[in-house]
Amino acid sequence: MRHLISMRDIGREEILNILDESERMEAILNEKGHCDFLNGRILATLFYEPSTRTRLSFETAMKRLGGNVIGFTDISNTSVTKGESLADTIKVISGYSDLIAIRHPSEGAARLSSENSKVPVINAGDGSNQHPTQTLLDLYTIKREVGHIENLKIAFIGDLKYGRTVHSLCQALSLFKGVEIKLISPDELKMPREVIEDISGKIKLSEMTDVEIDDVDVVYMTRIQKERFVDVNEYYKVKGIYRLSKEHIGDKNVVIMHPLPRVDEIDSEVDTLPQARYFKQSFYGVPVRMAILKLLFEDSVK
Amino acid sequence: MRHLISMRDIGREEILNILDESERMEAILNEKGHCDFLNGRILATLFYEPSTRTRLSFETAMKRLGGNVIGFTDISNTSVTKGESLADTIKVISGYSDLIAIRHPSEGAARLSSENSKVPVINAGDGSNQHPTQTLLDLYTIKREVGHIENLKIAFIGDLKYGRTVHSLCQALSLFKGVEIKLISPDELKMPREVIEDISGKIKLSEMTDVEIDDVDVVYMTRIQKERFVDVNEYYKVKGIYRLSKEHIGDKNVVIMHPLPRVDEIDSEVDTLPQARYFKQSFYGVPVRMAILKLLFEDSVK
Amino acid sequence: MRHLISMRDIGREEILNILDESERMEAILNEKGHCDFLNGRILATLFYEPSTRTRLSFETAMKRLGGNVIGFTDISNTSVTKGESLADTIKVISGYSDLIAIRHPSEGAARLSSENSKVPVINAGDGSNQHPTQTLLDLYTIKREVGHIENLKIAFIGDLKYGRTVHSLCQALSLFKGVEIKLISPDELKMPREVIEDISGKIKLSEMTDVEIDDVDVVYMTRIQKERFVDVNEYYKVKGIYRLSKEHIGDKNVVIMHPLPRVDEIDSEVDTLPQARYFKQSFYGVPVRMAILKLLFEDSVK
Repeated sequence: MRHLISMRDIGREEILNILDESERMEAILNEKGHCDFLNGRILATLFYEPSTRTRLSFETAMKRLGGNVIGFTDISNTSVTKGESLADTIKVISGYSDLIAIRHPSEGAARLSSENSKVPVINAGDGSNQHPTQTLLDLYTIKREVGHIENLKIAFIGDLKYGRTVHSLCQALSLFKGVEIKLISPDELKMPREVIEDISGKIKLSEMTDVEIDDVDVVYMTRIQKERFVDVNEYYKVKGIYRLSKEHIGDKNVVIMHPLPRVDEIDSEVDTLPQARYFKQSFYGVPVRMAILKLLFEDSVK
Repeated sequence: MRHLISMRDIGREEILNILDESERMEAILNEKGHCDFLNGRILATLFYEPSTRTRLSFETAMKRLGGNVIGFTDISNTSVTKGESLADTIKVISGYSDLIAIRHPSEGAARLSSENSKVPVINAGDGSNQHPTQTLLDLYTIKREVGHIENLKIAFIGDLKYGRTVHSLCQALSLFKGVEIKLISPDELKMPREVIEDISGKIKLSEMTDVEIDDVDVVYMTRIQKERFVDVNEYYKVKGIYRLSKEHIGDKNVVIMHPLPRVDEIDSEVDTLPQARYFKQSFYGVPVRMAILKLLFEDSVK
Repeated sequence: MRHLISMRDIGREEILNILDESERMEAILNEKGHCDFLNGRILATLFYEPSTRTRLSFETAMKRLGGNVIGFTDISNTSVTKGESLADTIKVISGYSDLIAIRHPSEGAARLSSENSKVPVINAGDGSNQHPTQTLLDLYTIKREVGHIENLKIAFIGDLKYGRTVHSLCQALSLFKGVEIKLISPDELKMPREVIEDISGKIKLSEMTDVEIDDVDVVYMTRIQKERFVDVNEYYKVKGIYRLSKEHIGDKNVVIMHPLPRVDEIDSEVDTLPQARYFKQSFYGVPVRMAILKLLFEDSVK
């Protein structure tokens, strides 16, 4: 593993290796809060569009590893791109740093960066394409909170059409045995055919519009945006159905996940239930990104 | 002490404890410049409105303690608040960090944050309400430069109506014995009645419009803003009176303080007088914030 | 050396001293990537106008030395200058930090800062005036890639009128023996008379409009901006001539430099030639700035 650009580049074994390393990182965080695996090393966080949560999670991971961070958070007031090509910027920055995490509005920007970099590049989201560290932290959350990924029963609820998070996680889950996926969404926001075709041979899939979550291990909620609907009345019809409340959960043995930020698709009274794990999921972004930074750096100096 | 939200939450003993710890931190700064009490630890500086001076002082304090900083300096180009509640943001960030310093335009935002955080929260200013670390560095400056807080004679000059700095410091001083306060301001900018009522039983107070500073230990200057006056002619009448010059000071045995930034209410030729201590006061923000960060962190892991 | 404000303040010996120290810093970077000469120390990067590349290079240098960085990247959303004088800001910040790097749109701002600072100030560019660390990294690149500065033959190509980089490097080269400079530019963008007069006694100079680079050690390219031409047709005439391609270079024994960012004045296919050293030049900014930070800090605590 030289770079982490797309989940499609890494296989089941590499995923499991990252999850194992994440577990070691989590133990370090719980025991003493930090370590010095990347002491004196520099991560460049190049955020060509703002994403505070992802940026802070990467920075936290690097600093918990004993490393340092340089970067920018928005290009509007930087000079880095004054007529300069992305390739040139990456050539310069990879002379300063040991690792690069890039977020860019254009699909393919992370791949292009990796081709021009002397140091490992991590895709921190390129447009509607890939955001592999989110997928890996989702998998880690499942492993830690459910206890297994194989034979997992998971329901995805909400906007399954536009969310790269859901597509990417479904594809990753298709690498594991015995996974069953329920796709619960309004007709307007169904999973795209190409994603379904990609995974349908490898995984048990069912699609529905009603929220039936009696027999699943994980409920993965996503945000439904009003502006996705052609007819606003259709939005108001589904809004209530896809808002998770205490009543939906009851005493079911289920893990509730959400990539955050949440708006109102999970009632805030759900937060106090033992099944709510979305803030834990967000925390898991730190050990998972620590593992990725550590593994990529170690491979780069071999 | 779990959080530092308001000076009203802490008593005389806790104040003295912070000032003692600040003295130890100042000694460390003078001797070797830094220490490693918070090695590997992370402070999140969440600045929902810009305040470069306060932010840099907090960041300096954390780094002098051996710690690291993550955060944002302005919400306009962050995604952290894209429809997300402050409570959710704090729940996420407190999963990344060991301490949080928050600056927010809304009164009560820091309190709300502390109620949703697993780690200590420090109020770095919430609207016109509280800014407790400023008050503590003011008290520290008095202790270091005058030598005592009890029996202090202090004159506040300028805008005593709108400045939270002055109100908060007066309230804190009312916890100490024998303090005498002179309130010197134009009629338009007098100290609000509720602040005076709050402290008048505990402290000797006098109000005046002329600058009489012969018998005080400290002159605490504040900025008078033109836009506070209904009649601009009134502003020009008082402008000259409340501008401190070399002549005002002479060889008086007095300590001149100012929360900064200064515009023209202290003549720049005053800077070279031995009585001028406002840049030292600004420097004292570092050891005082070091003490606060250290004490809060230590309490949080007990 | 107390501050680094202008190349005119330092002599040949001091330049050579900085280049020697830079070589030691480069060895450290290549061997273990970092050191702890400035462990626990703080550099304040005060960027009153954006310059991402310069800022990241300074931050990298400080962090590779084991130090920390505080600062701001743009004043539009800071409060530091809310009616506050630059002198006051520097007095405050020099109470927080051990070193200051300042970038400011006004000529003379760095000098003024140094006069108000208790800690060393480095000019990271003040308007069209000076940018001494760029000049020093250019000299270091020549030393490392050509092997000698004395008896150097160098051609400057492009806009020689507006670029402070070229003026400053020519002046610095005039301190060394036997240097020959070719100035290659369109008539509209010739080197200003005052710069030529300043160095013409000390250095062998020739001016031309055609690109003749057969007998030089270094080709130093600069960007030609369309908006510099009164008549746009003149621009289109010179555009092609001053665009460096593979054909220009052939198998000449020459080092190609460029201060970057590059737009199209060097064809991207030149990048793969062994003569292309502009990305290496950019990398050299790190060891050179490490040397400057280390030397200034050491002098300041003597």
